Amino acid sequence: MSKSNSVKIGVIGGGQLARMMIVPAINLGFDLKVLAEQEGSSAGLAATTVGNYQQLKVVEAFAKTVDVLTFDHEHVPLEILRRLEAKGVNIQPSSSALAFAQNKLHMRRRLAELNLPMPDWSSVKSADEIDAFLAEHSGEAILKTPIGGYDGKGVRAVTSSADASDWLAALAGFGGELLIEEKVDFVREVAQLSARTPSGEFRTWPLVQTTQSNGVCAEVLAPAPGATNEMLELAVAIAAHIAEGLGVTGVLAVEMFQTIDGRLLINELAMRPHNSGHFTIEGSVTSQFEQHLRAVLDLPLGDTSMTASNAIMVNLLGVDDQNSFVENYSKAMAAHPNIKIHTYAKAPRAGRKMGHITAIGENSAEIAASVWQAFGILVNG
Amino acid sequence: MSKSNSVKIGVIGGGQLARMMIVPAINLGFDLKVLAEQEGSSAGLAATTVGNYQQLKVVEAFAKTVDVLTFDHEHVPLEILRRLEAKGVNIQPSSSALAFAQNKLHMRRRLAELNLPMPDWSSVKSADEIDAFLAEHSGEAILKTPIGGYDGKGVRAVTSSADASDWLAALAGFGGELLIEEKVDFVREVAQLSARTPSGEFRTWPLVQTTQSNGVCAEVLAPAPGATNEMLELAVAIAAHIAEGLGVTGVLAVEMFQTIDGRLLINELAMRPHNSGHFTIEGSVTSQFEQHLRAVLDLPLGDTSMTASNAIMVNLLGVDDQNSFVENYSKAMAAHPNIKIHTYAKAPRAGRKMGHITAIGENSAEIAASVWQAFGILVNG
Repeated sequence: MSKSNSVKIGVIGGGQLARMMIVPAINLGFDLKVLAEQEGSSAGLAATTVGNYQQLKVVEAFAKTVDVLTFDHEHVPLEILRRLEAKGVNIQPSSSALAFAQNKLHMRRRLAELNLPMPDWSSVKSADEIDAFLAEHSGEAILKTPIGGYDGKGVRAVTSSADASDWLAALAGFGGELLIEEKVDFVREVAQLSARTPSGEFRTWPLVQTTQSNGVCAEVLAPAPGATNEMLELAVAIAAHIAEGLGVTGVLAVEMFQTIDGRLLINELAMRPHNSGHFTIEGSVTSQFEQHLRAVLDLPLGDTSMTASNAIMVNLLGVDDQNSFVENYSKAMAAHPNIKIHTYAKAPRAGRKMGHITAIGENSAEIAASVWQAFGILVNG
Repeated sequence: MSKSNSVKIGVIGGGQLARMMIVPAINLGFDLKVLAEQEGSSAGLAATTVGNYQQLKVVEAFAKTVDVLTFDHEHVPLEILRRLEAKGVNIQPSSSALAFAQNKLHMRRRLAELNLPMPDWSSVKSADEIDAFLAEHSGEAILKTPIGGYDGKGVRAVTSSADASDWLAALAGFGGELLIEEKVDFVREVAQLSARTPSGEFRTWPLVQTTQSNGVCAEVLAPAPGATNEMLELAVAIAAHIAEGLGVTGVLAVEMFQTIDGRLLINELAMRPHNSGHFTIEGSVTSQFEQHLRAVLDLPLGDTSMTASNAIMVNLLGVDDQNSFVENYSKAMAAHPNIKIHTYAKAPRAGRKMGHITAIGENSAEIAASVWQAFGILVNG
């Protein structure tokens, strides 16, 4: 049976984000192919290639099977992407946008050029430079490796250059410099999710409040409780400025600190569907995963209205190497028939992102109680 | 990477219903395997076996790879299912329930035993018996082949036994008898969707109004406009009585005629997710596809509340052997960002069920206008 007019999307990376992109591909009748790192990956159902994304040959062969390349993660070497782009491969977001997602110093420099609000920051290459920055910032700062960090990795609080001796010793591996940032006295963290097409259409979801635990997202509330119209407009303006200024296509997540005086300071960017947007699967007319596919195909973007007044998402982090949460489904489903459970078919490991649960509804306290009770059952049985 | 505790569901049949079951399997982290009739089927993404479901060996080998067997269609020979059940294979719904879905005369006889409301009906084996039934029913009736009919096939209006000469000549192939039913003077058709677990939990979605065109579902409105509480309760009671009385597990669709005097008469049954329930993907907290998986696994059932006051679903039937609708996505999405488009990756063919579109919202007139306008764009470009 021939499938005429089939649209082929290639996703590099076989993690849960690729897995969740399979759903809108099924709905919309697209052919989604995954280049997975290994057999049995979370997105293994759609894996048409298992190989190393750091090898040009592997990525190039995969690219030939699809109409557009996009990503589950931001780790594909830019050099590979640039060479494929030079040969006419359609890559969304492009290597020039991804450069800012792959290197936090490049990102800070570009955001500074765009006059976007950020914590004080500096590039540092030595213990002296770290201590000088600390001296100017009450003796506390956040030190980051410019490349390779995620989910709390490559980020640490420092009060002395002595806290950075290992990273300083390995400086060459981080591109010769580290990023140091002021420790922001924030009242909460928020995230602005958006999507942009190559043609320039841009849409946002409501600003959300995120709560991190040990550097990993634990809970997301949508919309961010008590946000003023002024703050909502500011968040959208920041996201639009970044998306255009950095040439981002597809989904963009902008994680920000909200300060006590009502400013928003840009913390991190992600140029792909993001944990802060998982609530959109049930909570929005168009999920971030569908929107990402539409955006990278340069199709018109979908309605981002919420499907209920409130949504709450809680991550299921692995508790040990046994509990996959599935064994507790029966008890959790019986007690909470309204909860939407997502697990990613990953082998259990403590701290690993194994899944998430979402509830939507008109009463935010009710859905929060329900989702956290279900969380307790899934974790503890 | 090992996936401990993985739950394996086998679906016989690679059509769009199996395709749409892949989505909740991804969400819930289940391993869904499909036994497809051929390469390139609608549910091909999850096809682990391509073979003939009419061969015991094929079905038996497939059954060994899963924890439970269920269905995309009702055509698997009962004898195969009975032999596998005798060997301990978990099949939901069971062969004893499916017997009533496979043979409309068995179904009528069982519903009669249960005192359920139906059109007048009779089994007929000859031209004389057809003419006698017609004489008692104003000269008009609906004649059905007891086996093998769907989507308007195997059903015809008759005014004389001469209209049935071909079927009478082929009577042995239909089990030796035909089903004849009074032509009901209905004001509309409605469908009651429900799900039941092997443990006996039973849940229903709101009653919907269905509109058929040439025997194929064209439009579904949820909830059925203007239904009285009395009618809603009656529909639920009928569905519960059937599900228990016939031992149905998984999703059950009961298609009924609403008469001018407010009665509901059972027309057809389907023991699987059904076209009248596609609106539940966006329109209900728990879709019929997720509920079917939960039910066949004997997990607690999900909340069937609607996510908005109203939902409308319109089928995308093939217009010719070229138009796959995907080529008109851009125009339809630009005009109607709220519409959820589903296509089934089938080769285009006139009249074929190629996809469907859904809108949800508070204003039924607005969403109907939107979905029908999007339909026009997808069909005509």
